Amino acid sequence: MKKTTYFESIKRIRYEGPDSDNPLAFKYYNPKRRVAGKTMEQHLKFAVAYWHTLKGTGGDPFGGAVYERPWDGGDPLDQAKRTMDAAFEFISKLGVRYWCFHDRDIAPEGDSIAQTNKWLATIVDQAAALQKSTGVKLLWGTANLFSHPRYTHGAATNPDPLVFAHAAAQIRRAMDATVALGGTGYVFWGGREGYVALINTDMKQEREQFARMLHMAVDYGRKIGFKGRFFIEPKPKEPTTHQYDFDAATVLGFLREFDLLDHFDLNIEANHATLATHSFEHELKVSADAGKLGSIDVNRGDQTVGWDTDQFPTNLYDAVATMRILLDQGGLKYGGLNFDAKVRRASFDLEDLFHAHIGGMDTFARGLIVADALKKDKRLDQFVRQRYAGYRRGVGKAIMTGKTDLKALEKYAAEKGEPQRISGRQEMLENILNDVIARSL
Amino acid sequence: MKKTTYFESIKRIRYEGPDSDNPLAFKYYNPKRRVAGKTMEQHLKFAVAYWHTLKGTGGDPFGGAVYERPWDGGDPLDQAKRTMDAAFEFISKLGVRYWCFHDRDIAPEGDSIAQTNKWLATIVDQAAALQKSTGVKLLWGTANLFSHPRYTHGAATNPDPLVFAHAAAQIRRAMDATVALGGTGYVFWGGREGYVALINTDMKQEREQFARMLHMAVDYGRKIGFKGRFFIEPKPKEPTTHQYDFDAATVLGFLREFDLLDHFDLNIEANHATLATHSFEHELKVSADAGKLGSIDVNRGDQTVGWDTDQFPTNLYDAVATMRILLDQGGLKYGGLNFDAKVRRASFDLEDLFHAHIGGMDTFARGLIVADALKKDKRLDQFVRQRYAGYRRGVGKAIMTGKTDLKALEKYAAEKGEPQRISGRQEMLENILNDVIARSL
Amino acid sequence: MKKTTYFESIKRIRYEGPDSDNPLAFKYYNPKRRVAGKTMEQHLKFAVAYWHTLKGTGGDPFGGAVYERPWDGGDPLDQAKRTMDAAFEFISKLGVRYWCFHDRDIAPEGDSIAQTNKWLATIVDQAAALQKSTGVKLLWGTANLFSHPRYTHGAATNPDPLVFAHAAAQIRRAMDATVALGGTGYVFWGGREGYVALINTDMKQEREQFARMLHMAVDYGRKIGFKGRFFIEPKPKEPTTHQYDFDAATVLGFLREFDLLDHFDLNIEANHATLATHSFEHELKVSADAGKLGSIDVNRGDQTVGWDTDQFPTNLYDAVATMRILLDQGGLKYGGLNFDAKVRRASFDLEDLFHAHIGGMDTFARGLIVADALKKDKRLDQFVRQRYAGYRRGVGKAIMTGKTDLKALEKYAAEKGEPQRISGRQEMLENILNDVIARSL
Amino acid sequence: MKKTTYFESIKRIRYEGPDSDNPLAFKYYNPKRRVAGKTMEQHLKFAVAYWHTLKGTGGDPFGGAVYERPWDGGDPLDQAKRTMDAAFEFISKLGVRYWCFHDRDIAPEGDSIAQTNKWLATIVDQAAALQKSTGVKLLWGTANLFSHPRYTHGAATNPDPLVFAHAAAQIRRAMDATVALGGTGYVFWGGREGYVALINTDMKQEREQFARMLHMAVDYGRKIGFKGRFFIEPKPKEPTTHQYDFDAATVLGFLREFDLLDHFDLNIEANHATLATHSFEHELKVSADAGKLGSIDVNRGDQTVGWDTDQFPTNLYDAVATMRILLDQGGLKYGGLNFDAKVRRASFDLEDLFHAHIGGMDTFARGLIVADALKKDKRLDQFVRQRYAGYRRGVGKAIMTGKTDLKALEKYAAEKGEPQRISGRQEMLENILNDVIARSL
Repeated sequence: MKKTTYFESIKRIRYEGPDSDNPLAFKYYNPKRRVAGKTMEQHLKFAVAYWHTLKGTGGDPFGGAVYERPWDGGDPLDQAKRTMDAAFEFISKLGVRYWCFHDRDIAPEGDSIAQTNKWLATIVDQAAALQKSTGVKLLWGTANLFSHPRYTHGAATNPDPLVFAHAAAQIRRAMDATVALGGTGYVFWGGREGYVALINTDMKQEREQFARMLHMAVDYGRKIGFKGRFFIEPKPKEPTTHQYDFDAATVLGFLREFDLLDHFDLNIEANHATLATHSFEHELKVSADAGKLGSIDVNRGDQTVGWDTDQFPTNLYDAVATMRILLDQGGLKYGGLNFDAKVRRASFDLEDLFHAHIGGMDTFARGLIVADALKKDKRLDQFVRQRYAGYRRGVGKAIMTGKTDLKALEKYAAEKGEPQRISGRQEMLENILNDVIARSL
Repeated sequence: MKKTTYFESIKRIRYEGPDSDNPLAFKYYNPKRRVAGKTMEQHLKFAVAYWHTLKGTGGDPFGGAVYERPWDGGDPLDQAKRTMDAAFEFISKLGVRYWCFHDRDIAPEGDSIAQTNKWLATIVDQAAALQKSTGVKLLWGTANLFSHPRYTHGAATNPDPLVFAHAAAQIRRAMDATVALGGTGYVFWGGREGYVALINTDMKQEREQFARMLHMAVDYGRKIGFKGRFFIEPKPKEPTTHQYDFDAATVLGFLREFDLLDHFDLNIEANHATLATHSFEHELKVSADAGKLGSIDVNRGDQTVGWDTDQFPTNLYDAVATMRILLDQGGLKYGGLNFDAKVRRASFDLEDLFHAHIGGMDTFARGLIVADALKKDKRLDQFVRQRYAGYRRGVGKAIMTGKTDLKALEKYAAEKGEPQRISGRQEMLENILNDVIARSL
Repeated sequence: MKKTTYFESIKRIRYEGPDSDNPLAFKYYNPKRRVAGKTMEQHLKFAVAYWHTLKGTGGDPFGGAVYERPWDGGDPLDQAKRTMDAAFEFISKLGVRYWCFHDRDIAPEGDSIAQTNKWLATIVDQAAALQKSTGVKLLWGTANLFSHPRYTHGAATNPDPLVFAHAAAQIRRAMDATVALGGTGYVFWGGREGYVALINTDMKQEREQFARMLHMAVDYGRKIGFKGRFFIEPKPKEPTTHQYDFDAATVLGFLREFDLLDHFDLNIEANHATLATHSFEHELKVSADAGKLGSIDVNRGDQTVGWDTDQFPTNLYDAVATMRILLDQGGLKYGGLNFDAKVRRASFDLEDLFHAHIGGMDTFARGLIVADALKKDKRLDQFVRQRYAGYRRGVGKAIMTGKTDLKALEKYAAEKGEPQRISGRQEMLENILNDVIARSL
Repeated sequence: MKKTTYFESIKRIRYEGPDSDNPLAFKYYNPKRRVAGKTMEQHLKFAVAYWHTLKGTGGDPFGGAVYERPWDGGDPLDQAKRTMDAAFEFISKLGVRYWCFHDRDIAPEGDSIAQTNKWLATIVDQAAALQKSTGVKLLWGTANLFSHPRYTHGAATNPDPLVFAHAAAQIRRAMDATVALGGTGYVFWGGREGYVALINTDMKQEREQFARMLHMAVDYGRKIGFKGRFFIEPKPKEPTTHQYDFDAATVLGFLREFDLLDHFDLNIEANHATLATHSFEHELKVSADAGKLGSIDVNRGDQTVGWDTDQFPTNLYDAVATMRILLDQGGLKYGGLNFDAKVRRASFDLEDLFHAHIGGMDTFARGLIVADALKKDKRLDQFVRQRYAGYRRGVGKAIMTGKTDLKALEKYAAEKGEPQRISGRQEMLENILNDVIARSL
């Protein structure tokens, strides 16, 4: 049978429990286990990233491709077809329910827009059939607007309107493909939308161009019946020196400025957070506080280096923080947990792809279990809620509702005198976190 | 005469020209020299920062005060008076026309709000008299809402409304003082408005509190007849782990979110820019592009360390970039160039304070001369303008004015085919910058 | 009884097991539990850092002291005595067996060297008595050569030989104190031994001065019968821009260059490692590989900021990495695990000091348990050993023993042809680590 | 004539002086101008880096090749020949006297070591002929031990001895080529000699392997009559997470540890310095202080990003600092100033290559002029010399010559009492630097 061609030696990955030494089994991710009222599978909408997992080459700035994938080689369209088959075999064996793609990951670029569109449509048909036969769904789609040389100076923010037009053409068809495959999200990651140097850049003009493109995309999406959400994925730098979608706060400000806020949520990536010198949790919180946490790219960076390493998520603390926020907001309706992560250059084998995803899935399964235990433990949540109680009554309430002013507050302060010094109890709370982690796994 | 008590050995600093070896003379800053239609003095609204220059102790996290200032010691109010005299003597000898202060720099905190207010009023009277006699003006005032232990968890963002009230009391009186002294700006630098750890923080609540305080401050300011501008000064971190006013884009987004944009401009600090992993020029540009570059803290950081070093500005490239932007926007109406900078701990002497300011002033005088030469040279500006010309005609214009859509643009792209690869000429432009610098000094 | 004066409300901290919700109890640190052939207490030679825990004020660059300690105030020598009593009460209640000090932490500086020495001797006598009565031991001592204004330009690296002489005097007496109190280590942390700016620095001269001081210290120590080890603690920057003891590799190079290697081991601090853009594990490994891992300052930094935060260690991964290395090298004979960490500025209460240390101790207890489980699991160690097996036989052995050359190796390579691509299995190994962590707690 | 095929539109670059607006002319680099007793050409041994300038593609991690070079395409060996012709045409038109190469830049890798060696020999013959006809010389050669997939886990530090052997084979022939072309240096830049993760690495073993390779290389080099110097080029990270040649201090320590110091100097790169959180000047100074500053890769990084940008050097301050050090040590006998720099991805045109090099050459010409002026001005050098004068007499001299001890120094300190606080005058010195820069250009 065709589906077993590429990963013959690997069997369907199963849950074997914490004591298993089988590297090709889940230790914690048990799709049917119920936690906080839902199954793990329902909580954890994992998605496989087509670009890294199927199309990754292991190349880096100091060396080219090192992986030898059995689906590679030959005529571009044939290769695309084989790759799509391999993808669904991989996803199915892994037991993940979603996938994500860029247009150019799944189908090659032709000599003309017409040819490119035709190839894309062919592959989309194939993917639709595979989705049907496997039950795997599309989480979100996007357009690759950074790899082709024409996008060197940016896509929507390119000084040449003809490049803008090419980008528009790609977005159109990537949205068509997303809708055709039933994706619930469409992502904008600002590839080269930024500047390398201010000396040759009109940043004001470029940001306006970017906003124009987003408006056109929203208009088009609604016209073709896209019912999902648009996502912007912040990143501070790389490949450009300054990416316009620097971080969550910057993107939210941009969306407000250009009247785009109603249409967009954020897709937060762990490694992009740390490149912006934020914690992952911070970026999730900023988005969630704004009611705009739409989807998550679960990966991790290396805190000792200054570029995007896109490693698979293995840090338990990050997973716990993420799942606490998701439990609080009731999950991700349109988005999911996309493994925007790649195995290391030196992880040459197909098996490594499985290890990597299994590790990520077990990490978030553990995160979910701990987050649920923390909710039940209540100590952390109650501490914070209690801490700000003063703003829900008396003068605090007057402050929050605009019922007082500087003069009245001065009078109040003069009467009450010096405030008490109340400990923030950071160390105690950090201990509770560690205690519950150790206790609940 | 009283005014010469503290800096007896130092004479009024004069312009002696580029060939002077006198460390206590200007080499480039010639207040009456005309550049681009105005005098240097008019272009360069330098201000002395009271806190660093008069109140700095040389202390750092690994050691306490090391300076022995002749105005220090004795009864707090007397000391405050002597310090104010010293300040105006220093500013006058330096030939700077503006100063900036925090409330607690100029007057001590008493045992009660009433006493504190009284002391502040006394010192403000003294300052007003000194302003009159010397011609020195107040650029802006602010309240120190971070040094007192009560502000450990923040001021406006404190979980305790009583602390909020104390902060409100301080802001009220700091604004009174600013108005009394004719300041054209009032600054909010978010001291401890941020979090040390998310684990005990409700960021959403804290940001709302902060917005409430700003609204009250604006209301109060307008009520007492403040005609200047309110400024927010972004900083990404330090003393907290995450300051809510992270950078210019974050602050602009915050002001939009809470309907504060009309009342505020930004006060950009060089060292805060680099701590946010931006260039100084970037933060200036973001603000200027938004029509919100109100004032500038001219200092510099050390790119090899991760904290605020607040060194005096000496980098010619930064000064040129700043002055290009200021020439473009016609200067700073309400703000100026405040030396938010301190001499190094090891620069023990009063003389070092003069060296530091002289260096900063000469650096910006050079920056102005070069920026003017670049404007006249025209090559840089014309390159950028020409680069985006496509958006002022044809399909580009249609993009910018909302007269086209994805479908039409796809058609256009298909017809026109692949865009040309046009060099961004970054290296050539960087050479022009260096050539004009070397040629114009 | 005197000993209960300062922490009246706190009882002796006990082990209550993982399920306890008592914040003032250990959940994992059980001193008598045997792991890998020794008790936890024997493995984990925790030490309390006198400076942070007893002398910390909560001050930071933006605000002064905020803690109000019952042992503070009054005559300097009396305060020193009360503080020492409080220290031993704290250490005893916590159940830690070691402490560490700087000379100026424990006794104040007088108006003359003679007076200072006398005061120090008085306090050392008190400490000796308290050690005897409590069974608490001194891990190591050191001299504070950075707080006094005279050390602004450095101590041993000061341009003024008179400052060098003052530093020498302090080191002499700090070593006397260390020997008197039975310390097994004497630490050099290079306070201000570095430069703020190259423009006024002769780095070559300063490094030679530093080496001279270390030689004198070794000579003196051996003369007075010090039987322990000298430690250097690397730090890359802060307070200076560049500290000469940048990281473990730099210090090892320095020790070799100046013929000091035989006398010194390294004292590795977690936060200093990350400030140097290394991982903590890296610095431990570099030291251990050189046979020079002598002692450890267990704390943590905040990866989102660029200064030393000296937080208490709570990261399980770091604790596991540390304990794996210590199990491998058979522990720390002369050194220990010193909590060079401070509670946050906002953790005002005495209780917070207990929370902080309890959290650190439980974290390392967990680290020990996991590290032992990893040793028993064997998979990680065996993988690495097997990976380099080729160098213990054949051509690999010839390479390592100098029995081959470029020409012979070219011949070998030509014959054997292209090497296989063997996966480094990083993802699988990271999963094993997480699996064993979750399984063994 | 063949030599003019590739850059037809570009004429020989000439010196036209500071007032020229011709982007294809030197404004300051005048090869025959005498400065400090030598010509500019003698001081500034510029070299063109074959890899970036001839073989650069503009590719980055987010997109492939974008340049279309007229020498590209066709049969690999033919392409190599055309490229070499283009190189010498470029270098000659630019008026640079040196070039540098990796083995795989100049000749392709064949299917066997024999074929590869044959191709390399062919190209070396061609290069030798071109050197003869143009007068251009080889500065240094090196082997590319990081691009081929076999080097994914490192070359000398690879866990597989067969990879070590392949690396040995390459080094052998790259050294042969260097000697054949008269290079005065042979460089080791540790490509992938480092680790990605400690979890699968035996760092101690790997460093020993690396040392073994260097010893074999030295032995081979001396055997074939190489009379030049071996250079190691430090870099802290990228592509690996931790490169063993982290910085100058680390490399010097390594060379000492493995008894290699006599054979090696350092090749310092500006961008690698800043990636290690050092200043460029710091790394130059560390090397020069050790008598080991052998060669320099003059480029620059971007301080706002965390990866190697390898931009052309344009910063005047860096050039001045470099040239001051070089004037002090009498230049670089075996090394030079190699432009290890690449034009930006968006600088598509051949012309951009010229702009970039011209800018770099003018920057260092300005640096030389200013450095010479600073030497003549004397104020900076004298200040530093005077500052440490105390160590050349009296107690200071006793300290430096081992004629005193802690006890004697305590006595001295007690007698002399508290040292004076002498300002380090950092601000004044920084002003002098800026004044002399502005005055001397």
